[in-house]
Amino acid sequence: MTYRAPVAEYQFIFDHIVGLDGVRETETFSEATKDVTDAILIEAGRLCDDVIAPLQRPGDLHPARLENGVVRTSPGFADGHKAIAEGGWVGISADPEYGGMGLPMAMTTAVNDMMSGACLALQLNPLLTQGQIEALEHHASDELKAIYLPKLISGEWSGTMNLTEPQAGSDVGALSSKAEPNEDGTYSITGQKIYITWGDTDFTDNVCHLVLARLPDGASGTKGISLFMVPKRLPDENGDAGVANNLKVVSLEHKLGLHGSPTAVMQYDGAKGWLVGEKHGGMAAMFTMMNNARLGVGAQGIGVAEAAYQHALSYAQDRRQGRSMIENGTGSIVDHADVRRMLTGMKADIFASRAIAAACAVAIDMSTATGDQGWQSRAAFLTPITKAFGSDVGIETSQTGVMVHGGMGFVEETGAAQYCRDVQVTAIYEGTNGIQAMDLVARKLMDGGDAAFALISEMEDQAEAARANFPELAEAVWQASETLRETTEWMVEQKDYNDRFAGAVPYLRAFARVLGAHFHLKAAMADGAAREKLATFYIKRLLPDHTALLVHAREGAADLYALSVDELAA
Amino acid sequence: MTYRAPVAEYQFIFDHIVGLDGVRETETFSEATKDVTDAILIEAGRLCDDVIAPLQRPGDLHPARLENGVVRTSPGFADGHKAIAEGGWVGISADPEYGGMGLPMAMTTAVNDMMSGACLALQLNPLLTQGQIEALEHHASDELKAIYLPKLISGEWSGTMNLTEPQAGSDVGALSSKAEPNEDGTYSITGQKIYITWGDTDFTDNVCHLVLARLPDGASGTKGISLFMVPKRLPDENGDAGVANNLKVVSLEHKLGLHGSPTAVMQYDGAKGWLVGEKHGGMAAMFTMMNNARLGVGAQGIGVAEAAYQHALSYAQDRRQGRSMIENGTGSIVDHADVRRMLTGMKADIFASRAIAAACAVAIDMSTATGDQGWQSRAAFLTPITKAFGSDVGIETSQTGVMVHGGMGFVEETGAAQYCRDVQVTAIYEGTNGIQAMDLVARKLMDGGDAAFALISEMEDQAEAARANFPELAEAVWQASETLRETTEWMVEQKDYNDRFAGAVPYLRAFARVLGAHFHLKAAMADGAAREKLATFYIKRLLPDHTALLVHAREGAADLYALSVDELAA
Repeated sequence: MTYRAPVAEYQFIFDHIVGLDGVRETETFSEATKDVTDAILIEAGRLCDDVIAPLQRPGDLHPARLENGVVRTSPGFADGHKAIAEGGWVGISADPEYGGMGLPMAMTTAVNDMMSGACLALQLNPLLTQGQIEALEHHASDELKAIYLPKLISGEWSGTMNLTEPQAGSDVGALSSKAEPNEDGTYSITGQKIYITWGDTDFTDNVCHLVLARLPDGASGTKGISLFMVPKRLPDENGDAGVANNLKVVSLEHKLGLHGSPTAVMQYDGAKGWLVGEKHGGMAAMFTMMNNARLGVGAQGIGVAEAAYQHALSYAQDRRQGRSMIENGTGSIVDHADVRRMLTGMKADIFASRAIAAACAVAIDMSTATGDQGWQSRAAFLTPITKAFGSDVGIETSQTGVMVHGGMGFVEETGAAQYCRDVQVTAIYEGTNGIQAMDLVARKLMDGGDAAFALISEMEDQAEAARANFPELAEAVWQASETLRETTEWMVEQKDYNDRFAGAVPYLRAFARVLGAHFHLKAAMADGAAREKLATFYIKRLLPDHTALLVHAREGAADLYALSVDELAA
Repeated sequence: MTYRAPVAEYQFIFDHIVGLDGVRETETFSEATKDVTDAILIEAGRLCDDVIAPLQRPGDLHPARLENGVVRTSPGFADGHKAIAEGGWVGISADPEYGGMGLPMAMTTAVNDMMSGACLALQLNPLLTQGQIEALEHHASDELKAIYLPKLISGEWSGTMNLTEPQAGSDVGALSSKAEPNEDGTYSITGQKIYITWGDTDFTDNVCHLVLARLPDGASGTKGISLFMVPKRLPDENGDAGVANNLKVVSLEHKLGLHGSPTAVMQYDGAKGWLVGEKHGGMAAMFTMMNNARLGVGAQGIGVAEAAYQHALSYAQDRRQGRSMIENGTGSIVDHADVRRMLTGMKADIFASRAIAAACAVAIDMSTATGDQGWQSRAAFLTPITKAFGSDVGIETSQTGVMVHGGMGFVEETGAAQYCRDVQVTAIYEGTNGIQAMDLVARKLMDGGDAAFALISEMEDQAEAARANFPELAEAVWQASETLRETTEWMVEQKDYNDRFAGAVPYLRAFARVLGAHFHLKAAMADGAAREKLATFYIKRLLPDHTALLVHAREGAADLYALSVDELAA
């Protein structure tokens, strides 16, 4: 089976579902004409199909390893990264002043999705560099920008983010890494960081670490944290990678998946660093990077789901087994109702999550181009949904892919299991999906639900407009939106945030389910034929989930604690 | 973290939920007094905790391997198996005439659950031997029984089942292995079989393969298949393992999990075999083995879920992170609502699936002891539900366990990921969960739904009885039972079985959900306190799933095929 990047699918979603035209009409993105974006998608698709996808298995079979303190990457990864870098794919949305393409985040999202389906372990490298580029663009001094951005955008250097410490995971404020000011205005960074994705490479001239640490006068908690650029090699007078900094890779983790992506424990021993952004303003700067990364992680889940789906469909088409129950069947297992149910469900969920991710990216682009608060709130609201639902769809779809393969799914050689292993972490990193859901019901509802209600009204309006063509589907979407509205009102009313948190995960999931139905209905309106059939499947068979989810979402926290920890352990 | 077998939980379930007393009152199982069964559970629990559980990680890290045609098992597995064999744990339910304990299947199920939680890869070995013992007890000649049963029951020899061939997976009837009659009444077996679990060991004196093959006069399809005993070593005149038979292990699979369990490709080159059961009656004999195994696989899923839950709870109790939102919290992440939601959900699903498995086992025992058709139908109906729901709970719970661990869940050293990898195959082997669901809606509803409706009535009656104590919970269970009844009626009415198949998986899941609620309610009635709180969680937060599932179950097949294969691939 051969991976094929979903180029035409993104063209459809951009043109008919999320309105990339609106982005093109802004001055900021006026160069992103349809001709340009189509050409970019096609070119990126070709890279993914021909160059990146062949690296998926070798990366799993020959993990990155640490040899005498130096990371050795998987076979072919250096060439793969070179192709990504030289094609300009790291800096699709980066500032043209520093060598970026200046294209919308929608384009970056599409390419990230396609590249993740091809080889997630390698794609993580440019994804993190993209996040670093965005953080520097927003927060770094001009001097730092001039040194780092061209190298990062060209892919000569790569970037990492260093938040986590053993005692400070999701609670970043508990970190203990220290930054001591030097006399020359730089800082000496000391501490240990864990889970540093692509903490080192043997194919970039430098690795630039954005490190969170506390200055001597930094308060405890997140308010006293500052962000520093700490490069593996100090830039020399020409801006090239010079002498080694006082930092090292201590070890690499043995992981369930993503063996091709080295996950490092990093040790900083008075390493030289430069402040990025304001003193004690590290969390704000890091959030820029993290928001970008969250959209990117959602796209990763969707990309792996796509690959797992293609893989399973191909197997199902080839595998002859059992007696066909239908007339004019193919004789392969795609004839079986349950296999068809699995495959159609996979495809339907992929479309739903992809449309949500694209809508999120377009909202970011419109916000960037117009500065409009509405677009900004919409982007902020859709980001945790994109991240959590995209990664969940990745996990569920890849697991269903294993099931479609039957016994062959459990055998590593088919590759079906690798998708399952690789994609698990997308539900964890950049904030677990539980934390995404808590962000959604707390911070993202702080506007009193304005962003949420705006989305819900949009869904209802569209459902009304669709009634003439698809009365049954439109009614289902309208009703679901109403139920979602009621639960959103309930959420906003809860003053004790723990009552929100208790239902956060099912609430996020339900919001994604209903949004997915909205986009499926829109697709059916835009292009009857196959889109209508897929929308029918989704709305009739998957959308009903939302009712149970919303019941769960409104239960509140009290009964969660009724059972004591001792009783849980009994 | 240390695994603790759920001994007290089984005592509660046996005494208060599934009525092991009824089994004890039969003549067949009159020796299974409460004193005896309690002692057995405690002893088995000790074995699991102290001897078997320590083999879980070594089995993963040091997979079974093939050296010059000989299987070398993981470190400690030989001693672990010896302890299982010498304790008599292989033959818990086997015929005392041949050395078995003659105890109810309920006891075997409990021990299988506990041992699977300790180390699934090793537990698979006695599980398959148990299935073989039961197949021989029912179908083999007295001569074969006399030779094989004592050795299998004592664990000196182990057993395998050989159904699958590359072109014949779920469609067993497509197999091409041949059996040629010899002049001495034996047969020469030739063919290749794949996915042979524990196809060889280095810790049993013999490996006994039950092999499906076709006699020269066998019809095509399943009707022409016969079953043969084909031992690795031919029994000598003393009944001991003698000269080697003409069979070999060709290779072992590289698998997602269960690395400690060798999954073999077996080659039979005119190997000597003995007919088991009637000529061309192989499928019937194999089904005896498979039904036993299906209950066993359900127990495996539940056992792994239990281990993953204990592991996650232990981690959550130790891990300090973030700000507690509750008064008098522990300061660890169990204080967080979302973590509490995950853990409580895991515990609630484990109880539900375990009660279903125990009810299935008790139905088998009552059927064995009384020959009553009602008990037999109930056992047959509950078997696919136990298998599919038990394995699904295993997969979902172990995945949630990874999420509770956050980043540490993706790191193999914690062991959380191993549960996830190991348990995946329980949804696949002994008939995929899709096939379990098809069995449920086709064969198991052939009685016009009698067995299903009897269960539903039992649930409704109990809900009525619970109204006085738990009006809200009882009403929810009653309503859910009614909806299940309606959908069951719909299922029975469908003459085109493909309309049933199209909703089979969600129907099975919904049945399990409602059964789980029924047993939770029963537990609350039996022992208010913690059981009531867990029942409240399950019934309020998880039971509502059934509505969406039953909507899905009733959609029929037509729209599943609306989207053509080409459209799926587009």
